[in-house]
Amino acid sequence: MATVRLWSDDDAAADPVVSAVFADIRATRKSEFVNDFWRALANDRQNLRRVWEDLKRVMIAPGALDPLTCELVYIAVSITNGCQYCIHSHTAAARAKGMTDAQHGHLLAIVGMANQTNALVTGMGIEPDAAFRVG
Amino acid sequence: MATVRLWSDDDAAADPVVSAVFADIRATRKSEFVNDFWRALANDRQNLRRVWEDLKRVMIAPGALDPLTCELVYIAVSITNGCQYCIHSHTAAARAKGMTDAQHGHLLAIVGMANQTNALVTGMGIEPDAAFRVG
Amino acid sequence: MATVRLWSDDDAAADPVVSAVFADIRATRKSEFVNDFWRALANDRQNLRRVWEDLKRVMIAPGALDPLTCELVYIAVSITNGCQYCIHSHTAAARAKGMTDAQHGHLLAIVGMANQTNALVTGMGIEPDAAFRVG
Amino acid sequence: MATVRLWSDDDAAADPVVSAVFADIRATRKSEFVNDFWRALANDRQNLRRVWEDLKRVMIAPGALDPLTCELVYIAVSITNGCQYCIHSHTAAARAKGMTDAQHGHLLAIVGMANQTNALVTGMGIEPDAAFRVG
Amino acid sequence: MATVRLWSDDDAAADPVVSAVFADIRATRKSEFVNDFWRALANDRQNLRRVWEDLKRVMIAPGALDPLTCELVYIAVSITNGCQYCIHSHTAAARAKGMTDAQHGHLLAIVGMANQTNALVTGMGIEPDAAFRVG
Amino acid sequence: MATVRLWSDDDAAADPVVSAVFADIRATRKSEFVNDFWRALANDRQNLRRVWEDLKRVMIAPGALDPLTCELVYIAVSITNGCQYCIHSHTAAARAKGMTDAQHGHLLAIVGMANQTNALVTGMGIEPDAAFRVG
Repeated sequence: MATVRLWSDDDAAADPVVSAVFADIRATRKSEFVNDFWRALANDRQNLRRVWEDLKRVMIAPGALDPLTCELVYIAVSITNGCQYCIHSHTAAARAKGMTDAQHGHLLAIVGMANQTNALVTGMGIEPDAAFRVG
Repeated sequence: MATVRLWSDDDAAADPVVSAVFADIRATRKSEFVNDFWRALANDRQNLRRVWEDLKRVMIAPGALDPLTCELVYIAVSITNGCQYCIHSHTAAARAKGMTDAQHGHLLAIVGMANQTNALVTGMGIEPDAAFRVG
Repeated sequence: MATVRLWSDDDAAADPVVSAVFADIRATRKSEFVNDFWRALANDRQNLRRVWEDLKRVMIAPGALDPLTCELVYIAVSITNGCQYCIHSHTAAARAKGMTDAQHGHLLAIVGMANQTNALVTGMGIEPDAAFRVG
Repeated sequence: MATVRLWSDDDAAADPVVSAVFADIRATRKSEFVNDFWRALANDRQNLRRVWEDLKRVMIAPGALDPLTCELVYIAVSITNGCQYCIHSHTAAARAKGMTDAQHGHLLAIVGMANQTNALVTGMGIEPDAAFRVG
Repeated sequence: MATVRLWSDDDAAADPVVSAVFADIRATRKSEFVNDFWRALANDRQNLRRVWEDLKRVMIAPGALDPLTCELVYIAVSITNGCQYCIHSHTAAARAKGMTDAQHGHLLAIVGMANQTNALVTGMGIEPDAAFRVG
Repeated sequence: MATVRLWSDDDAAADPVVSAVFADIRATRKSEFVNDFWRALANDRQNLRRVWEDLKRVMIAPGALDPLTCELVYIAVSITNGCQYCIHSHTAAARAKGMTDAQHGHLLAIVGMANQTNALVTGMGIEPDAAFRVG
């Protein structure tokens, strides 16, 4: 149940901005599949283009972190925020980039531990040690 | 300002469980430094031992993900939970394990993007595409 | 799947507190529709009355912010908390109060940006500039 | 550093609503101390009165849960939200109501575990077992 | 829709670690029912054993807080994190340990109030009163 | 205490990308003041430029929502995420755009109520009414 309608390819074809973004998604990913996130975001074509351009720069263009590590970080954030859509889409993306079951298990264990120690630290109200200071 | 007192080395010396954990932290990390998280957790010696054992297994023992990737995932969770102590301690740990400024910048950009798209997805209420289904 | 049962109008009719609140919801909103939030909250009649009175004062009585702005703020909080029920009910309420598709798109873009910059600020651990100080 | 000013007793004396709430806080708690939460909330006298009335009903009036359990639940929520002010004020309140160090340690351990398993469940995307269904 | 497969009893029978944990869950809880959390966690047998041992120590072994209070705290955290699975499983567990409808209603009211005042405090940016300081 | 260094104007002058963004911030806002968010983000010049361009498009360019409403939504998100820096900077920005004390009070009351009802809904596990369905 969505708060916006999902754009079909026919809907997109009637809008030059949306159809250009959908075409670029397909060309960049070398796949005909356009997932529902983009079909929902198409309701605001300016936001659609901006978020896609951002994602290309942060997640797809060569960067200091390799593509699989990028996906693992994305999943860690999405779990902590409780976003099921993003957990599923980025877990699928991580698997497509080679994530093994053992790596997935390790990732979940770390995310669990971090959420546990975050809570312990916060409940005890402690402040960063001077040793952690930058510069 | 903490909700519990921080145990000095003298306090720890008087408690066999706490002193054993502190000694193991020092031996495992090959460093005399015991950060305040453990000094605060010492107020509940059973929890201190349990969390340290867990952390050794998840973050220090050889696993499917390399040590730097583990730290990046830990930071991503800690940022999303807003835990300043954990952000500072694990950013310092990541740097000690070789994280470059460029990798730190990329990490922050991904965490920012993931928090943005998590919110967009959630606000649009969309459900995972069938294509993301496992098995 | 709920953790409490949903009260039908027949259930409510047998309880003077619940039936009075349901009647006031209908009179205040000039609609026969009582949504499931109230039917679930009816299991604790004191809480039902308290929350309804609070909501009337904060969201329905004339205040410093106009009714549509109130709904936009409510949606922003609900997205950030990941509460699908509240996102759907308040998006419907905002539309009933005149929210256009363009305003909805702009709202989502702001909520996305704020979640992104919140994460960036938190990950960098910076503290408020002196210039933001009150008084 | 606050976004609103904190009302002194002199400020409060000049406002009949604020001074009445401050007086009721003192009478109800049998203490001269009015903590800064109320001195900040005084900037919106209607909200001050509403929140104080709500808190009296939920946290102070006799209810199905005893006063110490109420405080433990309050702390658990405040830790999970990362609200340092509330963690400190309700940890102090819990101690005043008899919370021992051992109980505090156990509370933190549970809050840590729950945050851990919440993350594990969320990351695995599992849905409630049919056996948990109500009625 | 899960990101991992759920292990049946037949799957578990073929793995000595998983079958030992499942057997211990059944013996400890005196029930044949093994809920899906453990069937999903079985994909990482080391994590399965670690989390089960932790949970036994924190939630099942005699501790400073009684078993029902432990469940109430668990529910409070799970609500604040928005984890539906954990809300349902621990609400069922709390009922099995004697939680009445009135206690459930009171718990929800406290969790609601705490989330409200956490937000008010945070929005006003106030810092803990000196009176809350430990030691 | 930050995890990155804050760039002075002299630091910025030595980097063409950073100095161009700082100059555009000053020209766009018609103010010499460049707040620490941008001075911290300067450590990753590509991210600095991307986030500034995004923010200009979402928060500064004419859009479907007026500038003050944009700030109120930003504050609501920042409170819910517990980001003190963003709460302070956007509360200051809202005041500069005309937010009155009464509007600030109303905003806080709504954010508090929304956080309360989000928790109540989540704890009761109810799903959106069919009446909220789009299209």
